Amino acid sequence: MLNFKLIIRFLGFLLLIEGFFILICIPISLIYKEGLCLSLGMSSLFSILPGGLAILFTRNADKNLPTRDGFLIVTMGWILFSLVGSLPFVLTGAIPSYTNAFFETVSGFTTTGATILDDIEALPHSMLFWRSIIQWLGGMGIIVMSLAIFPLLGIGGIQLFDAESPGPSVDKLHPRIKETAQRLWIIYIIFTIAQILFLLAGRMNLFDSICHSFTTMATGGYSTKQLSIAYWDSPYIHYVITFFMFLAGVNFTLSYFALHLNFKKVIQNEEFRLYLGLIVGFSILVGIILYFTQYHSLEESFRHAIFQVVSIMTTTGFVTTDYVQWIPFLSLILLILMFIGGSAGSTAGAIKVVRVLLFFKNSIMELKRLVHPSAILPVKFNKTAVPQEMLNNIFAFLSFYLLATIIGVIVMSAMGFDLSSSCGAVATTLGNVGPGIGVFGPAGSFSQVSAFGKWFLSFLMIIGRLELFTVLILLSPGFWRK
Amino acid sequence: MLNFKLIIRFLGFLLLIEGFFILICIPISLIYKEGLCLSLGMSSLFSILPGGLAILFTRNADKNLPTRDGFLIVTMGWILFSLVGSLPFVLTGAIPSYTNAFFETVSGFTTTGATILDDIEALPHSMLFWRSIIQWLGGMGIIVMSLAIFPLLGIGGIQLFDAESPGPSVDKLHPRIKETAQRLWIIYIIFTIAQILFLLAGRMNLFDSICHSFTTMATGGYSTKQLSIAYWDSPYIHYVITFFMFLAGVNFTLSYFALHLNFKKVIQNEEFRLYLGLIVGFSILVGIILYFTQYHSLEESFRHAIFQVVSIMTTTGFVTTDYVQWIPFLSLILLILMFIGGSAGSTAGAIKVVRVLLFFKNSIMELKRLVHPSAILPVKFNKTAVPQEMLNNIFAFLSFYLLATIIGVIVMSAMGFDLSSSCGAVATTLGNVGPGIGVFGPAGSFSQVSAFGKWFLSFLMIIGRLELFTVLILLSPGFWRK
Repeated sequence: MLNFKLIIRFLGFLLLIEGFFILICIPISLIYKEGLCLSLGMSSLFSILPGGLAILFTRNADKNLPTRDGFLIVTMGWILFSLVGSLPFVLTGAIPSYTNAFFETVSGFTTTGATILDDIEALPHSMLFWRSIIQWLGGMGIIVMSLAIFPLLGIGGIQLFDAESPGPSVDKLHPRIKETAQRLWIIYIIFTIAQILFLLAGRMNLFDSICHSFTTMATGGYSTKQLSIAYWDSPYIHYVITFFMFLAGVNFTLSYFALHLNFKKVIQNEEFRLYLGLIVGFSILVGIILYFTQYHSLEESFRHAIFQVVSIMTTTGFVTTDYVQWIPFLSLILLILMFIGGSAGSTAGAIKVVRVLLFFKNSIMELKRLVHPSAILPVKFNKTAVPQEMLNNIFAFLSFYLLATIIGVIVMSAMGFDLSSSCGAVATTLGNVGPGIGVFGPAGSFSQVSAFGKWFLSFLMIIGRLELFTVLILLSPGFWRK
Repeated sequence: MLNFKLIIRFLGFLLLIEGFFILICIPISLIYKEGLCLSLGMSSLFSILPGGLAILFTRNADKNLPTRDGFLIVTMGWILFSLVGSLPFVLTGAIPSYTNAFFETVSGFTTTGATILDDIEALPHSMLFWRSIIQWLGGMGIIVMSLAIFPLLGIGGIQLFDAESPGPSVDKLHPRIKETAQRLWIIYIIFTIAQILFLLAGRMNLFDSICHSFTTMATGGYSTKQLSIAYWDSPYIHYVITFFMFLAGVNFTLSYFALHLNFKKVIQNEEFRLYLGLIVGFSILVGIILYFTQYHSLEESFRHAIFQVVSIMTTTGFVTTDYVQWIPFLSLILLILMFIGGSAGSTAGAIKVVRVLLFFKNSIMELKRLVHPSAILPVKFNKTAVPQEMLNNIFAFLSFYLLATIIGVIVMSAMGFDLSSSCGAVATTLGNVGPGIGVFGPAGSFSQVSAFGKWFLSFLMIIGRLELFTVLILLSPGFWRK
C-alpha cells in the first residue's frame, strides 16, 4: 500500500515552501512600484492554504516512507509545484494564458529555460524575479533528487560521494541523505553568492546579478533580458558566467571535495575528465570554425565558442549570440551537446556524461570480448568494475531517451515543424537546455507552438528532468499492484 | 598467428567466382550488340588471373581456420570484391571515374542500391546486368555471413534454425554451415525464379524481370530504369515486387520452415511478428496520410504506402514514386524505418528488428526490476531467456551504430549538406537501403557528393553490411596481437 497520508504531507510542505517564496516577490514588486502585491498575495494564499491544511490533517501519518512512494512524491511534487507556480504569472496578468504560464513554470522548475515570451523585458521585475527563483528552487530540488531518488533508479551522485554506500541497489532512503543534502545546498548557496559578487564587480546591477546567478547555478538559463547574456557586451561577464555554468555542470560532491582541497579525487574522476575534455575539445573546434567563418578576433571567436559550448552542454541555455546565425554545421554540433548534458549529481540535465561514457566503454569492452571470447572483461569506472545491473539500467535509460526523442520529433514534425527545428525542440526540452536550433533558436520562442504542443513539451521537460524512470515507473502496472 | 595462406586461398576463390560472373555479361553484350566483349574479357582476366594464381600457390595451406581469420576474410573479401568488381564499369567506359565505379560497386555488393548515376538507362545492358548480378551475389554472401560469421559476433540466424547449436558463443565454424547455406541458397534461388516468372506474367520483359528479381531478393534495389519501379504503371507489378521484398526481409530460415509447411514456427517467431506488425502499422499510417494529402484513390494511396514502407524497411530501396515530394512528415517516418531494417538472417541491412525488439524489451524489464528490486526478471525472446552477453552485444552494436550515424552526419554536414539530407545519406548507406531523404531522395543521386564523400559513404556501406563488429574488430589492437 502506498502511504498516501505521508505523500500528501510531503506535498503540503512543498506548497508551503512555494507560497513562502511567492511572498518574497512582494518586496520586489514594492521596490519597483508595480502594484502587484495583491495578486502576489493571492497566489501565495493559493499555495500556503492548501499546503497548510494538508499538513494539518496528516499529523498522524505513518513516518515510514517506502521507496515506491518516493517516485510518486517527486513526480507529483514537480507537477504540483508547476501547476501552482503558474498562478503568479496568470494572476498578475504577466502571462494571461494558463497554458503559457504552465509551460513557463515547468520550464523554470525543470531548470530548462525555454520560454514562450517574445519580449522578456516587458515583464514586471517581480515576475522576472519569480522566474529566476523557480529555477533556483528547481536546482535545489535536483540536488535532493540526486541524493534520494536517482540512486534508487540505478545511477546518481551519492555513490561517488559516499564510498561506503552500497551503490545503486540502495533500497531505503539513506540515513545521511539529509546531512549530505545540507552540505551540497551550502555549496550551491556559496557558489550563488560568489557569482553575484563577481557579476556585481563587472557592473551588472544587483537585480540582474541575483537573477542570473540563481539561474546559472540551476543550469536554468532564464535571463532578465530578451537578448540573454548578449545584452552585456562585456567579456568579463561572459567569462564569469562561463565559469559558473561550468561549475554548475560538475557533480556537486566533486565540488565539495574541491572546496576541501581534495583535488586528487576530482582529477581522478573519469566523468569529470570526460566532461572537461568534451568542453575543451568542442570549444576549440567551434572556436576555430568561428574564427574562419564569423568573427575576426581570436579572443571573440573562442569566447563565444566556449560560452555557447558550456551553456549548451551544461544544459543552461544562456547565449552571448544567436548561434543559429552561425554556419549550419555548428547547429548540429550544439544539437549533439544538447543530448550529452552535464555530469550526474549536478543540476544539469540531458543524458549525462557518465552514461555516455559507460555506454561507449561497454562497446569497447564488447570488441575486446569478441577478440578474447573466454576472458572476463568487466566495464570499469573510476577503477571499479561496474555492476551489470547498472549497465542494463543505463541501456534502458538510453532506450527510453531515444524513444522519447523519436516520438517527440514525430509529434513536432506532425505539427509542421521542419526536421532540424523538431530535433532542436525535443533535445532542448527533454534535456532541459532552453533554446533549440532552427526556428527554436535563441531568437525564436516557443510561443509559436500550439497549446497541445506546449503541454506535450512540458511533459518532455518533466520526464527529462526526473530522469525518465521516476515518471515511467508510475506508468508501469506493477507499480500500482499489491 | 593468422593463417594468411588460407586467407589468400579464400580470397583467390572469391576472385575466381567474380571473374566467372563477369564472363556471364559477355553474352548479354553480344545479344545487345554493345561491342564490350574485349573490355569485359579484360576485366574478367584481372579477376581470374590473380585469383587462379592465389589458389595455385596456396595448395599446401593448413585447412584449419581460426574464428579470427573469418573476420579478416569477410572484410577483405567484400573490399576486394568491390575493388575488382569496379573494373567492368571503368574498362567499358560506362562509369569512367574509378571513385564513382567503386561507390557503385560497393553499393551493389553491400546490397545498398545507392547510385552515382544520373541517367541509369544510358548504361549498356551488360552493365545493367552486372549491377544486378553484384547485388544478387552480395545477397548470397550475406546468407553465408549470417550462418558463419554473425553468430560468432553474438547474433545471427543460425540459432533460430538450429535449436541444438549453442547460439552466440559458437567458437568454431559450424560443421553443418555448408549444408545449411546450400539449403538457404536454394530458397534464395527458388524465390528469384518465382519472382522472374511473376514479373514476366505482368508483361515486364525478360531482361528487366531477371535484373529486378536479382536485386529484390538481395534487398538491393538497383533498377534498370531511372524512375525505378515507377517506370511501370502497373499495380500488379508493384504488388508482386512488394511481396518479394517482404519475403527477402524475412529470416530465410523461417522461409525454409514455411516451405516445409511448418507455419507454427513462423507465426510464433517474435521477430517475424514485430516485422509484420511494423509493416502493417506503418503502411496504414502512411496510406491514410497519403489518402488525405496526395492521392485520390484509396487503392493508390495504400499501394504506394505499402510499397515504400516495405522497400525502405527491408532496405531494398525501390520506389514507385518520389516520396520526398510527399509531406515532409513522411520523410521522417521513412527515415526511422531506414534505421530499423528487416529481420536478422535475411538479406536486409540496418539495425534489424530483433535488436530493436530486445533493446526495448530490456527497457520494459528494467522498469519492472525497479518496481520489484529483488525479483529476477530475464529478458525473453521466443519464450527463452536471452543471455546477458547477447544483450550486452546488442547494446554495443547499437552504440557503434549510433556513433557511426553521428560521425556520418557530422561529416556530411561539414560538406555542406543540410541536416535532413545528411541524416538520410548516412541512414541509407549505413543501413544499406539505397535512396535517402532530402537531396538524396529517389530523384537525386550521390553524384553530387565529393570524391572524399563517396569513399566515406562506401566505408559506411561496408561497415553497415558487415554488422560493424566484423570490421571494427580488425581495428582493435588485441586482434593483431599474440
